[in-house]
Amino acid sequence: MWLGYPQGMPRTPLPLDRFYSVIPAGGVGSRLWPLSRADAPKFLHDLTGSGQTLLKDTWDRLAPLSGEDHIMVVTGRAHRAAVEAQLPRLRDENTVLESEPRDSTAAIGLAAAILERRTPGVIIGSFAADHVISGASLFHDAVVAAVQAANVGYIATIGITPTEPAVGFGYIECGDKLTIPGADHVSAVSSFVEKPDLATARRYLAGGRHLWNAGMFIASASTLLAEIGRTKPELHAGLIELASQWDDPATRGSAVDRIWPHLEKIAIDYSVAEPAAAAGRLAVVRGHFAWDDVGDFASLAKLNSHGQSGDLAILGEGARVLSDSSSGIVVSRSKRVISLIGVQDIVVVDTPDALLVTTSEHAQRVKVVVDALRLGGSSDVL
Amino acid sequence: MWLGYPQGMPRTPLPLDRFYSVIPAGGVGSRLWPLSRADAPKFLHDLTGSGQTLLKDTWDRLAPLSGEDHIMVVTGRAHRAAVEAQLPRLRDENTVLESEPRDSTAAIGLAAAILERRTPGVIIGSFAADHVISGASLFHDAVVAAVQAANVGYIATIGITPTEPAVGFGYIECGDKLTIPGADHVSAVSSFVEKPDLATARRYLAGGRHLWNAGMFIASASTLLAEIGRTKPELHAGLIELASQWDDPATRGSAVDRIWPHLEKIAIDYSVAEPAAAAGRLAVVRGHFAWDDVGDFASLAKLNSHGQSGDLAILGEGARVLSDSSSGIVVSRSKRVISLIGVQDIVVVDTPDALLVTTSEHAQRVKVVVDALRLGGSSDVL
Repeated sequence: MWLGYPQGMPRTPLPLDRFYSVIPAGGVGSRLWPLSRADAPKFLHDLTGSGQTLLKDTWDRLAPLSGEDHIMVVTGRAHRAAVEAQLPRLRDENTVLESEPRDSTAAIGLAAAILERRTPGVIIGSFAADHVISGASLFHDAVVAAVQAANVGYIATIGITPTEPAVGFGYIECGDKLTIPGADHVSAVSSFVEKPDLATARRYLAGGRHLWNAGMFIASASTLLAEIGRTKPELHAGLIELASQWDDPATRGSAVDRIWPHLEKIAIDYSVAEPAAAAGRLAVVRGHFAWDDVGDFASLAKLNSHGQSGDLAILGEGARVLSDSSSGIVVSRSKRVISLIGVQDIVVVDTPDALLVTTSEHAQRVKVVVDALRLGGSSDVL
Repeated sequence: MWLGYPQGMPRTPLPLDRFYSVIPAGGVGSRLWPLSRADAPKFLHDLTGSGQTLLKDTWDRLAPLSGEDHIMVVTGRAHRAAVEAQLPRLRDENTVLESEPRDSTAAIGLAAAILERRTPGVIIGSFAADHVISGASLFHDAVVAAVQAANVGYIATIGITPTEPAVGFGYIECGDKLTIPGADHVSAVSSFVEKPDLATARRYLAGGRHLWNAGMFIASASTLLAEIGRTKPELHAGLIELASQWDDPATRGSAVDRIWPHLEKIAIDYSVAEPAAAAGRLAVVRGHFAWDDVGDFASLAKLNSHGQSGDLAILGEGARVLSDSSSGIVVSRSKRVISLIGVQDIVVVDTPDALLVTTSEHAQRVKVVVDALRLGGSSDVL
């Protein structure tokens, strides 16, 4: 398989040489409760009506880039069976099971350390298990460019060209253009910006220098590990030690028990991306594909409305929904009849043991309710 | 037991002599779907949080007036067990079971015909099984006055003094004051008015001559039957024939099969109340108690809000409801956790097989949805 570049770049043969995809499949997706649960996290749902889970969509998108044998999944022990059912071609040695969640630096760093031991000089790309992307060939183009940047020593990320002044995403501010052999549209990163307010988001959109941070990182495993080593030496040491025991069945278990629970919990954004950006070691490739992290039900409604506002999106196989003059989204995970009358921008999520009713406007506050349920002794439905 | 009249009337001994209460327990209450169902009609629900059904509330309200032995219930065969469970003191001979619904003239007329045969000269009062009343002693006062009017040959109704310009009720326009021995505040009825628009309802409220039609009728059984005989002679003949066979176990069954299914379906408002009003034979007693027919979820929300708008009323034993800045009503008939975030005047009715989400504003449209479900082949949840 070959991919063409619109700019007339030489074609890059796929799968990419010495490239591994890493899929950290961890987060529950609290803002999508009661659809997402501890035992049914967001990545195990079909949120687009595609007929398959986001995890499987992610696999299918990455398989041409790295080859199926070169996809590693880092997930919780509790999700092993579900992940294996979704990804029957996932190799045993590419399944990294966490005994407990230790955040993204530990998850991606362990994958990097294991792969670097097995294949010195390997380049890895880390991609969330629960994002929605359309435009696979544009995505492939961006990853290929990011791998070129990784080949010359950068830690590369892919930033998404904004299509609206979104306030639900973080942004990457582009700095000077970088000259990378075989890749156009690559810049240094000036800074990372947390979710902005609407006025700021509008300025970003108008200015053209800010891209959405999609949490994608592409780098040689050794470069990534070196960055962790600089900012978090103890965490780095733990990861290297754990990786050295990983592939020996006689030692893995005890090494995990000894090391994993004590690793610092820190997002890779803070341990790697921001310090690397500050040091000029981070590159960003501009991605032109459509992307969404489906962070809440407002995103989900939009994603499933097919661009028609005022419509009612219905998600759920065999859903029995009767709507009279209503708009928004209904997610049906029970077999109950759901009737809506005259409710606008509504969010109704119907599951066998929990029901959520809110509006798109308040979708971000779902997390608050989840916290309240936990504190209130209703963990049975979380 | 004695009841006093605020006006210093002589006290009337209770229970009233030769007085029977009749409770037609028929209507499903479609506008309260999915709470009300064919097999769980409105009168079998606790809609006020009192801990007992509306039917039992009605019984308790009437028992002092007529005595428990003098309460007759007319209901569908399908509801026999449920009614008997609610009303263990209901006598077998006072249970009239309909093989199919034939509307209120047939139901109340049959009760009148049976009771007139058993106790010539009996006065009956018919009161819906599914209305909510508070102020029992004021209710008793009104019934006592209506019975005085019935004693001198009137068909009497009780009109409720409006407290707001309601558009969900029919109205009774009061005519000249009537002089009834032993009863003040009795007028002739000028006309019945269907549910008005808001402007008209406001005029009614300001004018002071219009009362809410609570569907209560008090008359001697013979007077009531004579009125039916004038307007609907065939229906009258059928009722008299059926009543004549009723108390003989050898003949009742075949008489019911032969006569009941062919009786005209017509509300007693049209067969009796309006013609009697036009002929000057209808009297109205002004009732000062609080009354609601709980016609839809907007009424139900109001009834359970304890006068505090902006609050969220919760109906349902053991309901698990978590509300963040929401108002309206939640009716919980499942054991599911229900979370509401930022929804105002919302109506959420959660039952094991059906869910309704609407707002108070659209509560009247629930019937439309029920019709759509019936036509759409979803009768399993009706």
